Amino acid sequence: MARPDPKDVRQVACVGTGVIGAAWTAYFLAHGYDVAAWDPGEDAEGILRRAVDAAWPALTDLGLAPGATRERLTFTPTLAEAVTGAWFIQESVPERLDIKIEIIAAIDGAADPEAVISSSTSGISMTDMQVRCAHPGRTVVGHPFNPVYLIPLVEVVPGAKTDAAAADWAKAFYDHAGKAAILCKDGIPGFLANVLQDAMWMQALHMAKQGDASVEDLDKSVVDGPGLRWAMTGPFFTFHLGGGAGGMRHNLAQFGPGLEEPYSLIPPLVRDQAAEDAVSDACERMAGGRSYEELVHARDKCLVAILKAVAEWRATFD
Amino acid sequence: MARPDPKDVRQVACVGTGVIGAAWTAYFLAHGYDVAAWDPGEDAEGILRRAVDAAWPALTDLGLAPGATRERLTFTPTLAEAVTGAWFIQESVPERLDIKIEIIAAIDGAADPEAVISSSTSGISMTDMQVRCAHPGRTVVGHPFNPVYLIPLVEVVPGAKTDAAAADWAKAFYDHAGKAAILCKDGIPGFLANVLQDAMWMQALHMAKQGDASVEDLDKSVVDGPGLRWAMTGPFFTFHLGGGAGGMRHNLAQFGPGLEEPYSLIPPLVRDQAAEDAVSDACERMAGGRSYEELVHARDKCLVAILKAVAEWRATFD
Repeated sequence: MARPDPKDVRQVACVGTGVIGAAWTAYFLAHGYDVAAWDPGEDAEGILRRAVDAAWPALTDLGLAPGATRERLTFTPTLAEAVTGAWFIQESVPERLDIKIEIIAAIDGAADPEAVISSSTSGISMTDMQVRCAHPGRTVVGHPFNPVYLIPLVEVVPGAKTDAAAADWAKAFYDHAGKAAILCKDGIPGFLANVLQDAMWMQALHMAKQGDASVEDLDKSVVDGPGLRWAMTGPFFTFHLGGGAGGMRHNLAQFGPGLEEPYSLIPPLVRDQAAEDAVSDACERMAGGRSYEELVHARDKCLVAILKAVAEWRATFD
Repeated sequence: MARPDPKDVRQVACVGTGVIGAAWTAYFLAHGYDVAAWDPGEDAEGILRRAVDAAWPALTDLGLAPGATRERLTFTPTLAEAVTGAWFIQESVPERLDIKIEIIAAIDGAADPEAVISSSTSGISMTDMQVRCAHPGRTVVGHPFNPVYLIPLVEVVPGAKTDAAAADWAKAFYDHAGKAAILCKDGIPGFLANVLQDAMWMQALHMAKQGDASVEDLDKSVVDGPGLRWAMTGPFFTFHLGGGAGGMRHNLAQFGPGLEEPYSLIPPLVRDQAAEDAVSDACERMAGGRSYEELVHARDKCLVAILKAVAEWRATFD
C-alpha cells in the first residue's frame, strides 16, 4: 500500500519498551494514537503499563489529544503482531549494534514495506543498522530526549540507503504528533544536541576533576545562570539578544577576538568573515523582524514564568 | 565604622550605569534598597531611569520587597557622593583594565574603608584591578548574568589581596538580596558559568562553520532538548536523573568509556575512579535523600510548567 499522509496515521507500533520505548508509548497514547507494543522481557507488559501510568499525569496536565486514552494500548505476544497495520514503528531496543540490526531486520520483514521504521538510538548510524533490511529506504534514526514524553526534540537522521522522502515523512510525522523534529546529516557521531550537551558536560567534568569548583557549584552556575535562558534561546540566539539592539553582528565584532582564545578546552576558532556573517544573518532571520524591545519584553515575561516554575522544583529540596 | 551584618544594609551604590549597572540599580530598588547611582555619560540619569522603568514590570511580577520603589533612586553628580554612606558598592564601568583600576581606586578613596566594593567584570581578575587601592581587602568580583535584574547567579571572586571575610560578606549580602551567589577561586579566566557556556557556544560555532547543521537547527536542538532541563538541573544532576534509580554512579559505569572518546571537541578525560566517585557522591548529596520517583515527579511538574512558559515566548514569533 502507499504510505499515507503523516496526518492520517492512526496506529503506531513501539518495539522495545524499556525506559525510552515506554515513554514513547505514553507519548503516542496521549497524542491520540492506537499503540501496539512488544518487548520480549519478563513482565514487560506490566512494567510498560506502570511506566505509562507514571507519565500520564504530566501528559494530562499538558493536554491530551481528543480521544486519547491508555485503553488504546495493546501489548502483543509477537513483534510481527505489533507492527502489522502500523505506518510508523518506533524501535527502542538496547543500544547494541547486533541487537539493532537483528530487530530492525525483523521489523522490516514483518511490517508493510512502506511503513516507516525509526530507531531511538542515541549514537548508532542507520547506515550501520539497515544492513539486513530488504526495504532499507524507509529506515531512519528518530533520536528523542529524556524524558521522552515531555522533551519535544527528535533528531531524524537518514542512513546511506534511506530514501529522502522517508526521512522527510518521518520529520513531518513527528512534527504532526507534537514533537519538534530536526533533520540531521548522517555521519555526525552524537547527532546535534548530544554533541553540544557533551561539550559542556565534558568541560564540567574536567573542571570538577582539576578542583576548579565543587560539583554543586558547577551545577549551580548553570541552573541559576545561563541554564535559565537555554529553555528559551539556544547558544546563538542567546548571544543575539546579549548583543543588544546590534544583535549577533555587534556581539561578534566586540567579542570575536575572544573566539581565538576560548575560555573552555574547545580549540580556538579560526575566524572568518563569511562564517560570522552567516551566523548573524541566521540570528536576524530567527528574530523575524521583532524589535529588540519586543524581544526583551517577551523574554523577560518568559524568564519570570520559568523562575516561578523552577522555584517549585527547588522547594522539593527544602 | 565596622561593617554591618549583610542583612542590615539599607543603602547601596551603583557606579557605572550602562546596561549592566542599570540592571543592578533596578534589581536593588526592587529588593527594597536605597540606591545612589553615578555615571559620567551624557544623559546618564535619563538613560538609567528609562532602563529601570523597562525592567520594573518583570520585577513587579516576581514580587517587590516591602517598601520598594523607584523613588528611592538618587542619581548623584559625583562618584564620591554616590558611595558615601553605602556599605555595598557595585562597579559596572566599561570592561577595560585601565578604567577598572582607576574607578575602583576612586571608589576606594571615597567610600568607608570597610564598605565592600564588587566589580561586575566578566573576566578580569580582582588581583589585577585592586592594585591602586589603599584598602584592597574589601574588593571582590561580583559577576552577574544578563538580564541582571532576572538571572540570579552572581560569581563572587576574591583577588590576591582580598580578605576572605570580605568575600564571604559579599556572598552573604548577595544571597540576602535574593541573588544566588557562588564563591569562586581566583585565576580561572571566565570564572565558572562562562567557561561552561563557552564550551557549548564554541562547539556550536565550529559546527555551524563546518556545515554540520544550520544555526537555526543547532539552536533548536538546545531549546527543544537539553535546554529545557538546564533551567532545573545542571550538567551533573541532569545525568544523575538520567541514570535512573542508579543515578550518576550507574551513568558513569555505563557511559564512562565514552568520556575517553568525547563527541565534542573537548579533549578526552583520563578516567579516575576517585574523581568519578566524588562526582557521584556530590550528586547523591544534591538529591538529599529524595527517591528517584519523588525527583522524577517533581521534575515532570516543573518541565510541564517550563513548557507552558516557553510556549508563550514562542508565540511571539508566530
